[in-house]
Amino acid sequence: MAPDLRAPVTPEGRRLLSLLRPHLPVLEREAEAHDRAARLPAHLFAQLGKDGVLGATVPAGHGGLGVTSMHDVAVALGEVAKADAGVALALHMQFSRGLTLTYEWRHGPPRSRALADDLLRQMAAGEAVVCGAVKDVGQPTTLTRADGDGYTLTGRKTLVSMAPIATHFVISAQVRENGDPVRLAAPVVPRDSAGLTVEDNWDGMGMRSSGSVDITFDAVPVPESHVLPRGALGEPDDAALAGQTVSSITMLGIYTALAEAARELTVAHVRKRGRAAPAVLTKIAEIDIRLYALRCAVAAALDNADRLSEDHSGDPAERGRAMMTPFQYAKLLVNRHAVDVVDDCLSVVGGAAYTGSHPLSRLYRDVRAGGFMHPYNYAGGVDYLSGQALR
Amino acid sequence: MAPDLRAPVTPEGRRLLSLLRPHLPVLEREAEAHDRAARLPAHLFAQLGKDGVLGATVPAGHGGLGVTSMHDVAVALGEVAKADAGVALALHMQFSRGLTLTYEWRHGPPRSRALADDLLRQMAAGEAVVCGAVKDVGQPTTLTRADGDGYTLTGRKTLVSMAPIATHFVISAQVRENGDPVRLAAPVVPRDSAGLTVEDNWDGMGMRSSGSVDITFDAVPVPESHVLPRGALGEPDDAALAGQTVSSITMLGIYTALAEAARELTVAHVRKRGRAAPAVLTKIAEIDIRLYALRCAVAAALDNADRLSEDHSGDPAERGRAMMTPFQYAKLLVNRHAVDVVDDCLSVVGGAAYTGSHPLSRLYRDVRAGGFMHPYNYAGGVDYLSGQALR
Amino acid sequence: MAPDLRAPVTPEGRRLLSLLRPHLPVLEREAEAHDRAARLPAHLFAQLGKDGVLGATVPAGHGGLGVTSMHDVAVALGEVAKADAGVALALHMQFSRGLTLTYEWRHGPPRSRALADDLLRQMAAGEAVVCGAVKDVGQPTTLTRADGDGYTLTGRKTLVSMAPIATHFVISAQVRENGDPVRLAAPVVPRDSAGLTVEDNWDGMGMRSSGSVDITFDAVPVPESHVLPRGALGEPDDAALAGQTVSSITMLGIYTALAEAARELTVAHVRKRGRAAPAVLTKIAEIDIRLYALRCAVAAALDNADRLSEDHSGDPAERGRAMMTPFQYAKLLVNRHAVDVVDDCLSVVGGAAYTGSHPLSRLYRDVRAGGFMHPYNYAGGVDYLSGQALR
Amino acid sequence: MAPDLRAPVTPEGRRLLSLLRPHLPVLEREAEAHDRAARLPAHLFAQLGKDGVLGATVPAGHGGLGVTSMHDVAVALGEVAKADAGVALALHMQFSRGLTLTYEWRHGPPRSRALADDLLRQMAAGEAVVCGAVKDVGQPTTLTRADGDGYTLTGRKTLVSMAPIATHFVISAQVRENGDPVRLAAPVVPRDSAGLTVEDNWDGMGMRSSGSVDITFDAVPVPESHVLPRGALGEPDDAALAGQTVSSITMLGIYTALAEAARELTVAHVRKRGRAAPAVLTKIAEIDIRLYALRCAVAAALDNADRLSEDHSGDPAERGRAMMTPFQYAKLLVNRHAVDVVDDCLSVVGGAAYTGSHPLSRLYRDVRAGGFMHPYNYAGGVDYLSGQALR
Repeated sequence: MAPDLRAPVTPEGRRLLSLLRPHLPVLEREAEAHDRAARLPAHLFAQLGKDGVLGATVPAGHGGLGVTSMHDVAVALGEVAKADAGVALALHMQFSRGLTLTYEWRHGPPRSRALADDLLRQMAAGEAVVCGAVKDVGQPTTLTRADGDGYTLTGRKTLVSMAPIATHFVISAQVRENGDPVRLAAPVVPRDSAGLTVEDNWDGMGMRSSGSVDITFDAVPVPESHVLPRGALGEPDDAALAGQTVSSITMLGIYTALAEAARELTVAHVRKRGRAAPAVLTKIAEIDIRLYALRCAVAAALDNADRLSEDHSGDPAERGRAMMTPFQYAKLLVNRHAVDVVDDCLSVVGGAAYTGSHPLSRLYRDVRAGGFMHPYNYAGGVDYLSGQALR
Repeated sequence: MAPDLRAPVTPEGRRLLSLLRPHLPVLEREAEAHDRAARLPAHLFAQLGKDGVLGATVPAGHGGLGVTSMHDVAVALGEVAKADAGVALALHMQFSRGLTLTYEWRHGPPRSRALADDLLRQMAAGEAVVCGAVKDVGQPTTLTRADGDGYTLTGRKTLVSMAPIATHFVISAQVRENGDPVRLAAPVVPRDSAGLTVEDNWDGMGMRSSGSVDITFDAVPVPESHVLPRGALGEPDDAALAGQTVSSITMLGIYTALAEAARELTVAHVRKRGRAAPAVLTKIAEIDIRLYALRCAVAAALDNADRLSEDHSGDPAERGRAMMTPFQYAKLLVNRHAVDVVDDCLSVVGGAAYTGSHPLSRLYRDVRAGGFMHPYNYAGGVDYLSGQALR
Repeated sequence: MAPDLRAPVTPEGRRLLSLLRPHLPVLEREAEAHDRAARLPAHLFAQLGKDGVLGATVPAGHGGLGVTSMHDVAVALGEVAKADAGVALALHMQFSRGLTLTYEWRHGPPRSRALADDLLRQMAAGEAVVCGAVKDVGQPTTLTRADGDGYTLTGRKTLVSMAPIATHFVISAQVRENGDPVRLAAPVVPRDSAGLTVEDNWDGMGMRSSGSVDITFDAVPVPESHVLPRGALGEPDDAALAGQTVSSITMLGIYTALAEAARELTVAHVRKRGRAAPAVLTKIAEIDIRLYALRCAVAAALDNADRLSEDHSGDPAERGRAMMTPFQYAKLLVNRHAVDVVDDCLSVVGGAAYTGSHPLSRLYRDVRAGGFMHPYNYAGGVDYLSGQALR
Repeated sequence: MAPDLRAPVTPEGRRLLSLLRPHLPVLEREAEAHDRAARLPAHLFAQLGKDGVLGATVPAGHGGLGVTSMHDVAVALGEVAKADAGVALALHMQFSRGLTLTYEWRHGPPRSRALADDLLRQMAAGEAVVCGAVKDVGQPTTLTRADGDGYTLTGRKTLVSMAPIATHFVISAQVRENGDPVRLAAPVVPRDSAGLTVEDNWDGMGMRSSGSVDITFDAVPVPESHVLPRGALGEPDDAALAGQTVSSITMLGIYTALAEAARELTVAHVRKRGRAAPAVLTKIAEIDIRLYALRCAVAAALDNADRLSEDHSGDPAERGRAMMTPFQYAKLLVNRHAVDVVDDCLSVVGGAAYTGSHPLSRLYRDVRAGGFMHPYNYAGGVDYLSGQALR
């Protein structure tokens, strides 16, 4: 049966959804206020930690829920997004870290395994809230060798969703050492490290409850044991596309869900109004056609990623491309059509949808974030996909 | 020479533009703050009144600038919109009232002429700021016969841009009297009338500096001399399409300008970045192609309206349709493509454009208002245009 | 695993594909000539009959290949379509008849079973080539009661693909009898029946090798035993949507394959040319994004139809809608985007693609037929889907 | 008043239209037959020659009609295109040559003036039918110095519309001489020159009556007096954009007219059918909106070209860009939306439109030629326009 984003496909995914659902009505009720205040609802995350949700993607052996299906993570994030899209984006950080740290624990070098093992246990216990931080402001964030066996970290990261409540950060950094070629690495830095500041500067057009602030590192000390190794800088490494896919593909569930939420509101509105003009009927059909394409493409890309993430039998570079390519097809579809669908919903509902307190006006702002999610933006996606087509 | 929205075509239009321009830098500087506060910059309108701008479309004989060209009004509103779109929307109210009251003064019945004459003089002197109010909340706003020669007005209007500083309102109302068939009329009501309340409730997704609040009428007394007669309710009256065109067509200048402003920012951004990916080059070409279509179609529709508004030689119903039809072609083009262009600009500029303080994020919210402007929304426009095609 | 239209999912489907493949090179070589001559390649069908392909969807117990998966039928038709789209359309007639007659044999009333049983055996033996004929020219085709136990059939059907070589026709007809309410029925008429004429009038813009001619019935005698009963006229019967889905959904494989064939040609062309302009790179990415959406949506709709066609446990009307709705989502996507993809391929390849002997110019004409396939055309699809959304 | 492609704007343009109109009914009647036979209707051109139409763009002093307005040429070509698009494309060759040879006669070097003077007189007398030939097959067409004062011309040109009846060809060629840098030139070659062969190989998907055959030059002798000088090879010469605009911009009238013809057929069809489904009403409105955009943009680009072609006061490179840029905006709009409009018309009319004898199926094939017209194709247009935006 073709998976269709309408329901989880694993028991663990169903368990996650059942734990999330009781929180959704409150989340939905508070969403407008968090949006206006550009405020991450920290109290909700505290409750999710108690319920075990923050360990959703942590293996059962570590005390987590053991959700490994990216399809199911996307479904869960979608359900949250229908209540509050920014919260779903923040939660994605934790779920995504669970998936990638599980990979480190299973397939990484010994030091990475130990570090991942520790973090995963804390995540399952609701004690660790772990953000990835990728995008630099200005100079690349850099690890330099310090005295002893450690490093110091310097730089500034932006758009670090969930940072206001994070306990740890996994930072994409460059390592500059001894005149060696620059390497990449991912230091894991506790929030209370000396020299680390979490800013309070998130002010997005949408996704305002996601807490996507900047963090700065002013010579933050990092022991060698807390540095996850990555590849060399600038060296093409298609194998790494696999990890990038796992990190980000579940976000497609968020943006698809926003379009579906807009559609539900709109169809309910038209049904209540009782009569529909010809252009409204046409738009409703066109909305549903595109939503079907989104659901099918996103579900297929997730299914593909789920299968390949388990399969290490072939060439790692080929595997990386085989995960990323359908992800990008689906992402570029979502980036365009989720926005188009919400836009059409505004047209159908009319001027009321344009007021700040109408859910459609929030969906309109939130859904536009999809095009800026990593990897890639539109231009990068076109480069990647045309490059694949012409290889 | 084909008019092209790039410059006024009459000396009066050029004079208006020269009076406006000194105010634009301040307006642009303050735009973000007014947007966040959802606040109409009343001080600016006070200055514009002193400079004579609030009488731009009042005949010179009444002390106004005598701008009659809708093309030139659209150009002027576009220039304002590039600095602050909400202010342009508010200013449109006054300019539009100048045009329609001039028509009343020239072609209306005697009582209308006297009323229009008086208001026009006050507008030119910067003493009258006049809003139209069309859209009802709930029941239709209604004039009922009171004792003596007057009426009382009851109802609630919404989306009355510029109302926070208005001195008078021209209200679309129904007249219910003696069991006669319901007639339409437009009472002109001073702001300080007993029973009239200007709410402070504007909270749009965009156009936040336009002051598009609600106003309520609780048995507001209106003397018969202040009621402009309109047609019968429900009676098809294509002649009235002419006045509706004059009232609203100049707004196309606003939305076209917003798309152009987004394009200017974006091209400057790409030029500064120094290199452009293939998809960026493609998008830039596509942006310019659509902007050309918008400018040409809007300019042609304005030119058509300008010519026909002077020409009373033919069948009034035919004239009404001949004004409205190209207006609707141009409006539906603008509603779609101005939004698309701004959306593409966000894609080209990238994540930075998604922050609340970036001008593109304001343009993205502001430009979406176009589809809700009267007449018509998308469904109404399709009804009107398909009806014309199949007459 | 999400099915993806790239390969059959059943052993029977793989067998069908292996039987078809040896014929494809000849078919491709001759395609241009058949296109110019608007000629069904009868010799190919004779060979397919010998190879058992004309019984592909006939149960194994009847001597057929026993393909029941609509997904696999769509994949097979797609492979044929890449060589010659018109032949695939003709072949669809036979495959579709196999599926629906198998349903009659399994679930129909006794008389239908006997008739279906007989036809299925002949199809498997390569002796029966069976067309459906749905679309009337002028008056509805009608069965009227004749003397004895039979009827006479009168009318004219159009767009009967494969008719030039058909041995039997299954005709959608109205039964007018004794002043009873008009019923629907499907008489099965052998080609050599008195009064039946197969015209030689197919002259499509594309799909020229499909032999989609008219057939006329001039008081053709039809024994009662050869009439498959259908519902009442004008009575809404959502249960019948299931059979309509089975009859037509596999055609989606044809139009998706045409878009893929155009893409393959185009990417090969660009690769050979060696350098690609920015707009070409952008178009290639956009082509692949849409093809992914098409493949995913079509595969999902086929998978859904395959599951539901086996499942008679629920409400038949509900089942009918649940089969038709995803089919229509996928069909409207295909109707638009398969055409768009081929159009973009022409733009990338350039003027050479516009000559009559270039495969892209044939694909451009062929692919446009999709929008006219039953059920529904664009307007009908919008009516159906908006109706479902607002039920 | 904004020009709108609905009527000529000069008396000469009106005269041209009045001379053409009597021929249109015959042309329309014969169009299907010429389309099927891929045959240029030579007899019509003979009649047009007698009527003076082949000298439409020749100055009155040379005996021509003296049409200088490109707008009016586009209107005339559009009227012809509604009857037979291929004939309009062929006629464009002659009209375009009249415009560019008039420019040579007015502004060229002495030798060019004499040659142009002679050709223009013959064109006005209906004795010269002059094709331009731009696109090479294989190697560039080349002039090499021969003994005496002449050259020999070798190469092959394709897509030379109207060639079957041409008396002269103006050939874009490279001059290779004495090891000098390669120059460009345009030799004018009579049809009966030794070594010149007009092929009979036109077989387009559409535009089949245009006679767009290949011509080959096998050491064709060309006296120096018959060579119009052009610039250096590869040297950017934006001044030359002016002549390229004049040569090709009037074709926009053809493709816009095809979309309008499709719309007229379609609206008439819907009106006759009596009722229109919601999607049909929506499509009709959308068709008219796009046609308005096309008419306005094409009219504005033509108006711009007409003004600038008369104005030699400024920098020639700037003038070239100022002519080409709006032309390209309008061309890319037309390339996309004229095709889209015809496609939508097919959807509205339904399956009947897909038959070879339906005018919409011819329009569908004809209108697709627009994207291949020089200059530029889509990729070239994007390169040019993005280059202009980022200069």
